[in-house]
Amino acid sequence: MRRFILSAFASVSIVYCTAQTDDSLMIRKIASEILVNSQAYENLRYLTKQIGPRLAGSGGMVKSEKWGYQAFQKAGADKVFMQECMVPYWVRGGKDEAFVTGIQSAKVKGLADARITKKSLDVIALGNSIGSGPKGIAGEVVEVSSFEDLEQKKDQVKGKIVFYNYHFKKDFVETFDGYSDAVKYRGGGPGNAAKYGAAGVIIRSISHGENNHPHTGGTRYDSAYPKIPAVAVGLQDADWLSKELESKKLNMTIKTYGYFKPDTIGHNVIAEWKGSAFPDEIITVGAHLDSWDNCEGAHDDGAGCIQTIEIVRAFKAIGYQPKRTIRFVLFANEENGVRGGNKYAAVAKEKNEQHVFALESDAGGFTPRGFGFTAKPEVFAKIKSWEHLLRPYGGGYFAPEGSGVDIAPLNRTLGTTIAGLMPDSQRYFDYHHARNDVFEAVNKRELDLGAVNMAALIYLVDKYGL
Amino acid sequence: MRRFILSAFASVSIVYCTAQTDDSLMIRKIASEILVNSQAYENLRYLTKQIGPRLAGSGGMVKSEKWGYQAFQKAGADKVFMQECMVPYWVRGGKDEAFVTGIQSAKVKGLADARITKKSLDVIALGNSIGSGPKGIAGEVVEVSSFEDLEQKKDQVKGKIVFYNYHFKKDFVETFDGYSDAVKYRGGGPGNAAKYGAAGVIIRSISHGENNHPHTGGTRYDSAYPKIPAVAVGLQDADWLSKELESKKLNMTIKTYGYFKPDTIGHNVIAEWKGSAFPDEIITVGAHLDSWDNCEGAHDDGAGCIQTIEIVRAFKAIGYQPKRTIRFVLFANEENGVRGGNKYAAVAKEKNEQHVFALESDAGGFTPRGFGFTAKPEVFAKIKSWEHLLRPYGGGYFAPEGSGVDIAPLNRTLGTTIAGLMPDSQRYFDYHHARNDVFEAVNKRELDLGAVNMAALIYLVDKYGL
Repeated sequence: MRRFILSAFASVSIVYCTAQTDDSLMIRKIASEILVNSQAYENLRYLTKQIGPRLAGSGGMVKSEKWGYQAFQKAGADKVFMQECMVPYWVRGGKDEAFVTGIQSAKVKGLADARITKKSLDVIALGNSIGSGPKGIAGEVVEVSSFEDLEQKKDQVKGKIVFYNYHFKKDFVETFDGYSDAVKYRGGGPGNAAKYGAAGVIIRSISHGENNHPHTGGTRYDSAYPKIPAVAVGLQDADWLSKELESKKLNMTIKTYGYFKPDTIGHNVIAEWKGSAFPDEIITVGAHLDSWDNCEGAHDDGAGCIQTIEIVRAFKAIGYQPKRTIRFVLFANEENGVRGGNKYAAVAKEKNEQHVFALESDAGGFTPRGFGFTAKPEVFAKIKSWEHLLRPYGGGYFAPEGSGVDIAPLNRTLGTTIAGLMPDSQRYFDYHHARNDVFEAVNKRELDLGAVNMAALIYLVDKYGL
Repeated sequence: MRRFILSAFASVSIVYCTAQTDDSLMIRKIASEILVNSQAYENLRYLTKQIGPRLAGSGGMVKSEKWGYQAFQKAGADKVFMQECMVPYWVRGGKDEAFVTGIQSAKVKGLADARITKKSLDVIALGNSIGSGPKGIAGEVVEVSSFEDLEQKKDQVKGKIVFYNYHFKKDFVETFDGYSDAVKYRGGGPGNAAKYGAAGVIIRSISHGENNHPHTGGTRYDSAYPKIPAVAVGLQDADWLSKELESKKLNMTIKTYGYFKPDTIGHNVIAEWKGSAFPDEIITVGAHLDSWDNCEGAHDDGAGCIQTIEIVRAFKAIGYQPKRTIRFVLFANEENGVRGGNKYAAVAKEKNEQHVFALESDAGGFTPRGFGFTAKPEVFAKIKSWEHLLRPYGGGYFAPEGSGVDIAPLNRTLGTTIAGLMPDSQRYFDYHHARNDVFEAVNKRELDLGAVNMAALIYLVDKYGL
């Protein structure tokens, strides 16, 4: 490797006016505290390995709320409380399966023709989807490349299984653009297929990854049509299936067991730190505590929760005293309901609270590149003037668009300026909602640097207001 | 995770003058070709899994040169040739070992005092170091925290083993700064200890990682003093050793087997593409083909080699015709000699070649953040004006310092403007020169994006000259 390289990101901001120099020094102090003494990685290890999956309603949710409460206390928070909200309680109910039968396989060199009578695919039921029960549903597979293709084939899908094989576009640099483009098949695929009488749906996982792990995620049904079982399949199995379908008809059986239990009680876990000068102005920083049930939720969104807690610890460690009130929030039920985020905004409105800013980290614990803001132009211009202060820490690109699912209700309800941390997105969809979203997929320094940039932004908003 | 995010990096450059729009379109074309059709990841899989370690002189080196030649041809290169150079041939010679004996362990609750008679540490001999032979060397361990500390203790180290426990600083954002700060203990540690009669050296690995893998790398001896065995130890074992030494004296035995065979023949593998308009102006892009012997050399520097080859493939695929001559070079022997880089520059000088620019990728296959340049101020100013063109692809920060070890001789000899790709550095020293620098540590899209940014920069230099 090369032996000498410029201290590129550390040497960008050299001379500014006094206030900015003070800010540079303060941010350097925050950064050193976090990079050297962070507890984030060990906290994440605990959350992922000792608690693990924590879908709304589940036992994991209950454990994680208790853990979050204690973690805030350990980090030094003065006041921690639970904000109750009702959450949906979807249960997977069993091991999802899909297999194809009756494949006339290609000739294998040196062997006679072989007939594979059953091949299992690596699948997982979509969140919120209905179960087929142990008997399963079965039917011929009809592959469609898009909703437009489905329209063409609408007369052929009755009683059959629609295979949405829409490919995640790889030429977007920002992978969230690829996700936004493809995720409609997860959300709307079952409803659209049911409209034409399909018995079930199998979708290509919303990912560009190099493995075969299926990726779950929430789906929704069209209330005008029957609810039908719906699974996601790993990319390699999707490619195999598509290839096989080029030359033959295939039957597929899908077995899923999903169902909803009655709504239950969940909580936003909140640490509140009163401001010394403007206690009525509230800044929120947070992430969502729930995860899908098939993974540790390390990047989605354990990382964001841990960063939120780390900011409390670091601010306390350096003796920071906020001027405005800061709320650190672990939101309930982002994945399949956003009940936590909605509750938080509803209570804020009810109490006539003044929410000046909210920041969410929910795009993974990867190296930070910037923040995206939903703000009025004049507010964004003010924020944009701070960009250079974060550049030495990697997060110095501020985009005029972006947010977080859990804080969006604050913006809609109260007009609060909101922002989302933008980590580098290249690896996110390798892990997203899949079984490999585990602790080992997170790098300590990348996680810590995210917290550094978040803390720096919170510091600036707290100091200067918006 | 958040569902909608700005296409942040893809939407930065919107309106420029016509030439810049043409450039934007061309770079978009290059990017799409690589992001969608790249062969980089599969090439890297082959290099790391089928060839593996390839230290100068070794059988792996010979195999990798042959592979590189063929890989260039497969990528579509018109002319490929080998440039011979003599390379050193250091051999590890056996399994490195270090163990401490005679530890009086702390009282364990519920047990009587126990005596650990032998504890092995996870070590690896430093590259170029001398072997102790199977009998090993033994002596009391003297821990020093720095060279200054060694000076204080210089009368205590005769016949003993010096344990350099200098910590990689974590508060640098750019980890290469931490590396530059700490690596002097690997390079100069053995020589400085031998000066005071030490029998051997064990250094804390030059890493901030979270595991216990020891990190090798080249060392050098001071010719005025004896050569002594030298190993690096994993960070967890270093911490254990330091902790034990707080309360007791420890003896250590080190066994290493390193030696040099006679210099042998190696090669720079070069693909040359003649320019259509200015064939005498040469642009070089490359990386080093050798790796340490204890790993697959996936990030260091398989990634750079693969990116270099991918640029040939992508340029051919889109029908690009360079105006200037481009040389794609896989350099020999960066790790312990730089003989390939020196030879390349020497031949260039001998032939009176006109080298206008050279670019190296040797900082890992991570997501790109920019480039560092060694250039005259007016040249750098010209280059800097292209920054916005690379910003949508992540590599749009151009620093006025930086290079690559293999191309530095071109700058010293001919004054060539040189540059190094700067990927995000947070994960690099988790893997650097350690056994976990393997294929699985590289992400496909991050690797590809590095190639995208390199190709874009080469395109701009080729089009506009320097």
